[in-house]
Amino acid sequence: MRLLKELDQKDPAAVGLELHNFAAELYPICRSITGDGIRQTLESVGRRIPLRTAEVPSGTPVFDWTVPKEWNIRDAYVNDSNGKRVVDFRRSNLHALNYSTPVHATMPLSELKPHLFTLPDHPDWIPYRTSYYQENWGFCLAHNQMLALEDGEYEVCIDSTLEDGNLTYGECYLPGQSTDEVLISCHSCHPSLANDNLSGITVATALAQLLSGRDLRYSYRFLFIPGTIGAITWLARNREAASRIRHGLVLTCIGDAGGFHYKKSRRGDAEIDCAAAHVLRHYSESAEILEFSPYGYDERQYCSPGFNLAVGCLMRSQWGSFPEYHTSADNLDFIRPEQLAGSLRVCAAMMDILEGNRRYCNQNPYCEPQLGRRNLYRSTGGDSVGTDISARLWVLNFSDGQHSLLDIAERSGLPFATIDDAAELLFQAGLLSVTQS
Amino acid sequence: MRLLKELDQKDPAAVGLELHNFAAELYPICRSITGDGIRQTLESVGRRIPLRTAEVPSGTPVFDWTVPKEWNIRDAYVNDSNGKRVVDFRRSNLHALNYSTPVHATMPLSELKPHLFTLPDHPDWIPYRTSYYQENWGFCLAHNQMLALEDGEYEVCIDSTLEDGNLTYGECYLPGQSTDEVLISCHSCHPSLANDNLSGITVATALAQLLSGRDLRYSYRFLFIPGTIGAITWLARNREAASRIRHGLVLTCIGDAGGFHYKKSRRGDAEIDCAAAHVLRHYSESAEILEFSPYGYDERQYCSPGFNLAVGCLMRSQWGSFPEYHTSADNLDFIRPEQLAGSLRVCAAMMDILEGNRRYCNQNPYCEPQLGRRNLYRSTGGDSVGTDISARLWVLNFSDGQHSLLDIAERSGLPFATIDDAAELLFQAGLLSVTQS
Amino acid sequence: MRLLKELDQKDPAAVGLELHNFAAELYPICRSITGDGIRQTLESVGRRIPLRTAEVPSGTPVFDWTVPKEWNIRDAYVNDSNGKRVVDFRRSNLHALNYSTPVHATMPLSELKPHLFTLPDHPDWIPYRTSYYQENWGFCLAHNQMLALEDGEYEVCIDSTLEDGNLTYGECYLPGQSTDEVLISCHSCHPSLANDNLSGITVATALAQLLSGRDLRYSYRFLFIPGTIGAITWLARNREAASRIRHGLVLTCIGDAGGFHYKKSRRGDAEIDCAAAHVLRHYSESAEILEFSPYGYDERQYCSPGFNLAVGCLMRSQWGSFPEYHTSADNLDFIRPEQLAGSLRVCAAMMDILEGNRRYCNQNPYCEPQLGRRNLYRSTGGDSVGTDISARLWVLNFSDGQHSLLDIAERSGLPFATIDDAAELLFQAGLLSVTQS
Repeated sequence: MRLLKELDQKDPAAVGLELHNFAAELYPICRSITGDGIRQTLESVGRRIPLRTAEVPSGTPVFDWTVPKEWNIRDAYVNDSNGKRVVDFRRSNLHALNYSTPVHATMPLSELKPHLFTLPDHPDWIPYRTSYYQENWGFCLAHNQMLALEDGEYEVCIDSTLEDGNLTYGECYLPGQSTDEVLISCHSCHPSLANDNLSGITVATALAQLLSGRDLRYSYRFLFIPGTIGAITWLARNREAASRIRHGLVLTCIGDAGGFHYKKSRRGDAEIDCAAAHVLRHYSESAEILEFSPYGYDERQYCSPGFNLAVGCLMRSQWGSFPEYHTSADNLDFIRPEQLAGSLRVCAAMMDILEGNRRYCNQNPYCEPQLGRRNLYRSTGGDSVGTDISARLWVLNFSDGQHSLLDIAERSGLPFATIDDAAELLFQAGLLSVTQS
Repeated sequence: MRLLKELDQKDPAAVGLELHNFAAELYPICRSITGDGIRQTLESVGRRIPLRTAEVPSGTPVFDWTVPKEWNIRDAYVNDSNGKRVVDFRRSNLHALNYSTPVHATMPLSELKPHLFTLPDHPDWIPYRTSYYQENWGFCLAHNQMLALEDGEYEVCIDSTLEDGNLTYGECYLPGQSTDEVLISCHSCHPSLANDNLSGITVATALAQLLSGRDLRYSYRFLFIPGTIGAITWLARNREAASRIRHGLVLTCIGDAGGFHYKKSRRGDAEIDCAAAHVLRHYSESAEILEFSPYGYDERQYCSPGFNLAVGCLMRSQWGSFPEYHTSADNLDFIRPEQLAGSLRVCAAMMDILEGNRRYCNQNPYCEPQLGRRNLYRSTGGDSVGTDISARLWVLNFSDGQHSLLDIAERSGLPFATIDDAAELLFQAGLLSVTQS
Repeated sequence: MRLLKELDQKDPAAVGLELHNFAAELYPICRSITGDGIRQTLESVGRRIPLRTAEVPSGTPVFDWTVPKEWNIRDAYVNDSNGKRVVDFRRSNLHALNYSTPVHATMPLSELKPHLFTLPDHPDWIPYRTSYYQENWGFCLAHNQMLALEDGEYEVCIDSTLEDGNLTYGECYLPGQSTDEVLISCHSCHPSLANDNLSGITVATALAQLLSGRDLRYSYRFLFIPGTIGAITWLARNREAASRIRHGLVLTCIGDAGGFHYKKSRRGDAEIDCAAAHVLRHYSESAEILEFSPYGYDERQYCSPGFNLAVGCLMRSQWGSFPEYHTSADNLDFIRPEQLAGSLRVCAAMMDILEGNRRYCNQNPYCEPQLGRRNLYRSTGGDSVGTDISARLWVLNFSDGQHSLLDIAERSGLPFATIDDAAELLFQAGLLSVTQS
């Protein structure tokens, strides 16, 4: 049974709620590109799907980069002269500049200010800022919160550690008939930001659950990794596995109320690109297909020219294009159960295409075979034929060893599942042979 | 002289009237995929053009199919309990389910009803229904006619025979300089339906008349065949002739008042496809080019993947898309003399392109040749040049052995005839050589 | 430094004025395809750039043509019976039919009239007419001027000579690192017509000045030639140089107030075609790209099928499309300093692309190189990146040896100069190697 069909047999509200509950479980954790936040997140994922966790020591060279020190944080605050916490990490982990070096000092406001990050255009939101590769300390806070700070002395404390340790990532590998792989990758390094990227983590996990225990054509690899350095580290340590990736998808920002955006792989005409366009045309109300660009999430690494993998990126609202992006407004209210469920549905339909897409060869290529005597046609003529018969004629006519079922679905305007069903029926009737497994 | 030019020297009203009169002569005949109706039709065609009739015995295997039994019908009626004919084949041969098995019985209305076919949405029209490959008997009638039937006993009679015999089709072959062939095919199996397909039969016949007695580049083969099984039978028995078909056209539904539709061959970029698009752009007020699909008329067989012939389909209103389709409303009023004549005109222009389209080679490829001293340019400079000179420059510049005259016509936006005239003039002046005959 | 950058450091008003003053200097000269008018024009050009003048004797065969006789004119007039000059060459050199044979006679108006050319639709403008290849004499005059002529005898005089002599053209050759050439060609045979083509002559001259004394990648050849016969003569005598032309541009009608038109080379996808489209998209307010056609200016010869050179044509208003074309209304008021300067700017930007366009090879093709540690990235993450960093990512991702900088500029939507700057920076950082010089 197709994934989509199986999924559609469940209560969509329950599916959405389960995804949102999982996001709520992960939301409070302070993640970064290294450290215990990502470990704790992977533990939660690992309770749902089989997950192997890798620990890569700081200092390990990975292509042009080096695995950085491990960062952990216990607390962070700014106290005013009365000892009142005016900025408090316990209220939002976004308050600490991510990867901030430890600091504990008292200083006048003027000295503190260069270390404060705010969003004047959205004065009530806390921005999310990082300083991974240049050591710095700082606080992010609402602009109005900063304006309220009076001159005077402040005690600033970031109780973090930045020391040799490990970079951590998780892998879920589901073996299929072929060692050719489908990659699903999501960055898991952002702290309390829901759409970016608890939405990706939760949908990827649910997709892995849906695929588990099936007789699969492809092997599937799910990566839960820190952005950029995580993808680089995985690729540097897994050159051979990378060479087996036939199709891939980066999942990010897929829980908000916006329409879908699919960003094509660098190749632009890969099967995953066609599958995404097909699914979004048939299974979403509105969607936009974006050309590849070398900025974004980890498709930047998978699609670097040396790898040039067939990896696209599925989003709802495009990262960077919505005001809540990288702010405290990207919270659990910003993602919605029904949107998370809809995104899982689209992913399932795409995997159905990858699993089912084949080239067949019509065994009676000279004229149409007589479908009527096989009970594959209507009995009374003169009236128009239905979609089922039409799909059979499409499959027969274009099963010449050149056109895949997805090609035929696109050319006919019919959904892939309809074409795939027709092919299965014709194959059972002995009218088709498989030319490519 | 080009076909179009010859045709345009005639009175268009007279041309149209002759076509319509021929349709009127064929209209009353009860045709089916086999039997005397098609024989009688071929006799009428054969009085206008040289026609060879083939008889293929029932039971003959043709690819995946078998030539069916021969069907003939003398009469059909439903009598009410007073002996009054409430359904009468003599008023319309559509009343008998085409290929109906014989029946003669008396039965209550409730038993008769499953054998009655009507069109509730068009309650005054009789539908056209067939049951070729599943033996059945039945009557087609106006929905209002059926509603008027009162409960009671009815005498039903279909005085038909369905027995071993022959499948009949007609061929008109016009030999040309080359054994390469142009195929014109029209289905000739429908009873009293005018647009579908007396329009195709009459226009094909007139086109053959126009081509007769000419010094032709290609050989032309006109097929007047029963739909589907006729094309399959012809292809199965004429594999070698089929391999010589370079261009082809199925003619159907070309007498109504709608704008033209040309459905491309499966190849999509065949010369016939380009010729059709060119002609319809230049010689019709509005036209739509349709992509190939594996449903329709006999292009389904010609374009099956084993043959994949360059055969398109020319229509006015697309079959199945107008309410009169396959009903008694597709009558002699539904087709019009001027539309039939216009369709013949478009066919003639397409044949002119096939006959004239060549690749030439500019004998002075370095810079323009001096047209002025050959009286092929204007004498006073400074003003713009006319279409004739422009056409010469187009032909000279693109006659590089790669571009055909049709390519040049398309690129220049000029009609094929203008480009062809220019090429002839330049060829006479020794400025071009032919690179492809 | 790029040409455009150098040009933009000058006062645009001064650049425009210099171009217009030069046009004003050339305006009164009576040019034709041969004779002293063109010699005098080349002298003026030669005072600004290094120019070699060629003299080709009448009667020299050039491909399908023959170099014509040399034409010179001192005076021309029509006197009425009172001896009053009613048509006077000294008021406008357009009055004499260009290449008119000498005549001195007295005749009635009726006999004169067939030799008079006027523009009834623009009754105050004098048309420009020529009779190069068919010997004839005549006068061009305003339609109202002709209507005012009363019946009676007229003394007509064209004091011209048409004798064996030479065809004259000028060449400016600027050698570069490669012997591969860029051709800039402008016809220099029209008398007092400003846009057609003093605009081309003056902008070409200024472009040559801008290129002079630079370390150039390509060698540049500027041709100042009579239209048609000049291009044919040059090509016939310079087959080897012609074979070295990699890119070329015909400049005509680039001084008026209209938006730009670029007519593509016959190839349609040559680098010059892409460069023109790119420059006009980024550096002009509105522009139209026209497909190649074999009518126009000397691109007709350069793009004849034997040569098929990558030569396009840059215009503002397209020749033949504006009412002032080939009339006395194409005067010094019709061209404007700021438009001439803007055209020079577009040419400079195009040459910058030809000079700078290369293919690079990313030296770290597996994943992104770490730009941060080379100070080529921002330090604080979370916010969007600017155009400079984006350009670096585009160059790195597509520098695979297949994509040129122009390809990358087009794909990214960024101006070529931004991409070129990014490539230079990355090259300096050792991240790129050149794959094509």
